[in-house]
Amino acid sequence: MPLTTIDSLQNARVKRAKGLMQKRQRDREGLFLLEGERELERGIEGGIESTQIMLCPELFKHAETSLALKDKLIDGTTPVIFLTKQVFEHCSYRENPDGFLAICKTFNRSLDELVLSNNPLLLIVESLEKPGNLGTILRTADATGVDALILNDPITDIFNPNVIRASAGVVFKVPTVVATPSETHAYLKAKQILSFATTPDTDQLHFDASFSNPSAILMGSEKDGLSGFWIQHSDYKIRLPMAGQADSLNVGAATAAVLYEIIRQRR
Amino acid sequence: MPLTTIDSLQNARVKRAKGLMQKRQRDREGLFLLEGERELERGIEGGIESTQIMLCPELFKHAETSLALKDKLIDGTTPVIFLTKQVFEHCSYRENPDGFLAICKTFNRSLDELVLSNNPLLLIVESLEKPGNLGTILRTADATGVDALILNDPITDIFNPNVIRASAGVVFKVPTVVATPSETHAYLKAKQILSFATTPDTDQLHFDASFSNPSAILMGSEKDGLSGFWIQHSDYKIRLPMAGQADSLNVGAATAAVLYEIIRQRR
Repeated sequence: MPLTTIDSLQNARVKRAKGLMQKRQRDREGLFLLEGERELERGIEGGIESTQIMLCPELFKHAETSLALKDKLIDGTTPVIFLTKQVFEHCSYRENPDGFLAICKTFNRSLDELVLSNNPLLLIVESLEKPGNLGTILRTADATGVDALILNDPITDIFNPNVIRASAGVVFKVPTVVATPSETHAYLKAKQILSFATTPDTDQLHFDASFSNPSAILMGSEKDGLSGFWIQHSDYKIRLPMAGQADSLNVGAATAAVLYEIIRQRR
Repeated sequence: MPLTTIDSLQNARVKRAKGLMQKRQRDREGLFLLEGERELERGIEGGIESTQIMLCPELFKHAETSLALKDKLIDGTTPVIFLTKQVFEHCSYRENPDGFLAICKTFNRSLDELVLSNNPLLLIVESLEKPGNLGTILRTADATGVDALILNDPITDIFNPNVIRASAGVVFKVPTVVATPSETHAYLKAKQILSFATTPDTDQLHFDASFSNPSAILMGSEKDGLSGFWIQHSDYKIRLPMAGQADSLNVGAATAAVLYEIIRQRR
């Protein structure tokens, strides 16, 4: 069957794809945009369901792997269409697109669906705003093998195109759950997981805490840190030592420092 | 003396300020834009010289501190002008500007000007591209008290508006130097500072390295990691343990994990 090539910005499928840049549209349709060769490949590995694949071979970056993935996608069950360079660049949310874009189904896990290891390590982030930070945190969660990332009252959803980009596609490898702080607190209690709130308002350095038991690390928002709920309901409060001013660390950097200390202690 | 209010986008000073968003213009004029109340305050503390201050009180975010800083600036030696909201937003590189903007003089330190502590810790980053990563790294360098950040063959300069924003103004607190890899290597040898290259191509985990002596940590670019020069000329190679795929960490997150391990060992 010959593949369609779309060359009009007015095409309905093009407009629909473009609309998925907006959270409202993603929520309404239960669909999101997955862009990039590596991201698409990792998404497929991670079991993401796609409903429409859009390619622009003219923009492919890697002679061999790009063509191999193209052939694999054309042989798959999801419909594939081609876009002209102009139309692809219109749909893309990247500065330097690589010719791979898919419309995929969003998904939600609940806390009860999480499968935990013997000595769980959970990461809980509250009301994060910046997609780049959430993406960085997802990559660190993957690298350190956390059991799951729990998003409390998220301002930015994991299907935000910039989160996917910043996470280098890892967003689909780390189990993520959206939950309220009180749901999360009840879950941790039921599972006997200790919660560690990171906050500047404590003398307890993270180096001196023990993470040998099941642990959940709580990181607050960029602007306001953790909410009163978690400051009150967490089992322990910890902070990173600071040579500079109190607010000097980026939340993604702070998360990496804490998680790697846990990895070190648990070796 | 009554202060001028500029209400035209065609004003020469407005056009000149706007031009400083470009690296070429910054290099040519030796000037850069410093935006934001906190950044301006930290810049002044850090001894940054400004040549023109531009304010828009209508956009101020903090009733008390913003007005206090405004009064302090007006009493200072740098000329102050007011911009209308429309003109300020035109000159601003932020989504939600806070009414403070200054044109400041760029500066350069050389390696020989660095003042090192008794047991120096240096951070060297090579050809970093993303302003957000450089900003995050500057904040971590400040938090962990590194002696200096050395930028090898930088693609992004520290005067890039987005570096300043991402660094939360800390860019002026951490001594930074631009140098080539070979200049840096000669400097480390002369000062008897051990160099640690972070690379996935080693079995040596950073946890097992000893950073008790004068140390320099080398971080490579987002895309390509460290250059062949540093892989060949560094004293040690280290890597972070990875549960996920090899390239899963963001460079800012990896830097934080390594620097905090050094802080832990040196306590």
